[in-house]
Amino acid sequence: MGTALMTWPRNDRVTEPESPRNDMSVMSTAMVTASYGPGGTQDAHVRRLRDLLRSAILRDGFPAGQLPGEPELMTSYGVTRAVVREALALLRREGLIDRRQGVGTHVVVHAVLARLAEAHGAADPRVDSVFNRRLRPRVLDRSTIPLPAIAAERLGAPPGVPCLRLEYVALLDEEPTALATNYVLFPEAERLLALPFDTDWYALLRDAGIGLGESEFVVGCAPADATNAPLLDVAEGAPLITIEQVIRDATGRAFDLAHIHTRGDRFLFVSRAVREHASGI
Amino acid sequence: MGTALMTWPRNDRVTEPESPRNDMSVMSTAMVTASYGPGGTQDAHVRRLRDLLRSAILRDGFPAGQLPGEPELMTSYGVTRAVVREALALLRREGLIDRRQGVGTHVVVHAVLARLAEAHGAADPRVDSVFNRRLRPRVLDRSTIPLPAIAAERLGAPPGVPCLRLEYVALLDEEPTALATNYVLFPEAERLLALPFDTDWYALLRDAGIGLGESEFVVGCAPADATNAPLLDVAEGAPLITIEQVIRDATGRAFDLAHIHTRGDRFLFVSRAVREHASGI
Repeated sequence: MGTALMTWPRNDRVTEPESPRNDMSVMSTAMVTASYGPGGTQDAHVRRLRDLLRSAILRDGFPAGQLPGEPELMTSYGVTRAVVREALALLRREGLIDRRQGVGTHVVVHAVLARLAEAHGAADPRVDSVFNRRLRPRVLDRSTIPLPAIAAERLGAPPGVPCLRLEYVALLDEEPTALATNYVLFPEAERLLALPFDTDWYALLRDAGIGLGESEFVVGCAPADATNAPLLDVAEGAPLITIEQVIRDATGRAFDLAHIHTRGDRFLFVSRAVREHASGI
Repeated sequence: MGTALMTWPRNDRVTEPESPRNDMSVMSTAMVTASYGPGGTQDAHVRRLRDLLRSAILRDGFPAGQLPGEPELMTSYGVTRAVVREALALLRREGLIDRRQGVGTHVVVHAVLARLAEAHGAADPRVDSVFNRRLRPRVLDRSTIPLPAIAAERLGAPPGVPCLRLEYVALLDEEPTALATNYVLFPEAERLLALPFDTDWYALLRDAGIGLGESEFVVGCAPADATNAPLLDVAEGAPLITIEQVIRDATGRAFDLAHIHTRGDRFLFVSRAVREHASGI
């Protein structure tokens, strides 16, 4: 089969072409309105087109942020106008695009792709990295408090010992992108208290001469609610990436626990993993 | 200061103790209802308590899934009853806990912690890993279709060449945890079509003798909507982790693109990063 272009469904499991070759750009109505077969319901076609478009939107994949028009999307993906419209409606509801009569459909978000290793603070930031002093913190709290019980368990420290609670909204180009609450043990806390905090967390640690040996993330997601939506400038219910981070020093001693909420439309994390001993083949 | 237990706010930036030592378990009402100072508004206290409790809930940190009662939480975290109740109300709204009069508050989710390297398919699964043939797929689509344009760009292949679209819901203990749409190029697709798909994706690749050289994730989040909520058995609006994955073979050639939506209350990803050249100190 090689890389030959596919001009027609390959077997009887296929009922609807989705990405015809260029010379099929004028599809017959009969093809486009074919009944949905094993390829799925209309919902399935909407979902797949939405996923493909979302990926391109967040990766800045459309020139000048302008999406193709409905006819082009219908042709390129071999779907009906109803499928195209519903996929675009979902993306608009997510706040990723805007549609205007006569102007078309354009991207209204600008997401940053952050290397996971940089987000961990484990790799030196590249020149253009968001972690290269491009963030600015709006500090919400900088208090010394007794270490809360659950934080104590995560840090392996006794509850009630003093810790620095440093809480801030990370702004990128003056727009909120993440909200972080850090619980930092002493003596590291003492060094942080002695310094101004005016850029990103890892720059602060470096400036304070605090070595980062290892970082652990537990990554999940949660909806924004009344307690964080206004701080992140999102609607309640907007999906946020949640990161619980534990930072250890070079000896393995945990000294910082952070609960971080990140806007899903502002930050994407890129993670690469290489298999050392490739299996198969 | 060392590890001495902290018995009182350390400086004037602190107005409310959050985690008193054990012998302060009977706090005076005056302390608990102290006005909110630099530590933040009531919302801030709700948010921090919610974050701490959520972390423990998802990590299976409460014995028998039973949360402490309101008085204990008030004492342990030095917050008012209103703060405790609001934090628990938010966690209930997220679907993480249930509260019953006379029975108390208990955890109603069971999240799996998955090592990111295993989720990538780059590390051999540990015996107890969810990626050790513990998942079962409900296949939604297994069709050969022309490669869609945006997928072609991500894979570096010409649009319109044949690809296998393999779409499934990954079930763990018969419960939906993730929804994945894979676009697999030939010749790998041919091998996958020849096999039954009855466990996890990486087991399928191994069974097919397909080597994984490298995996890339772009991790974000999105709300569930009508096209995927029923498949994942969540409400519309529920937050989902989105993963766009590109898998390359040992030569660096990309042959698989996947759009994955994962339930945030079922799957958490654990990522560790070690700093090779510790800075500072």
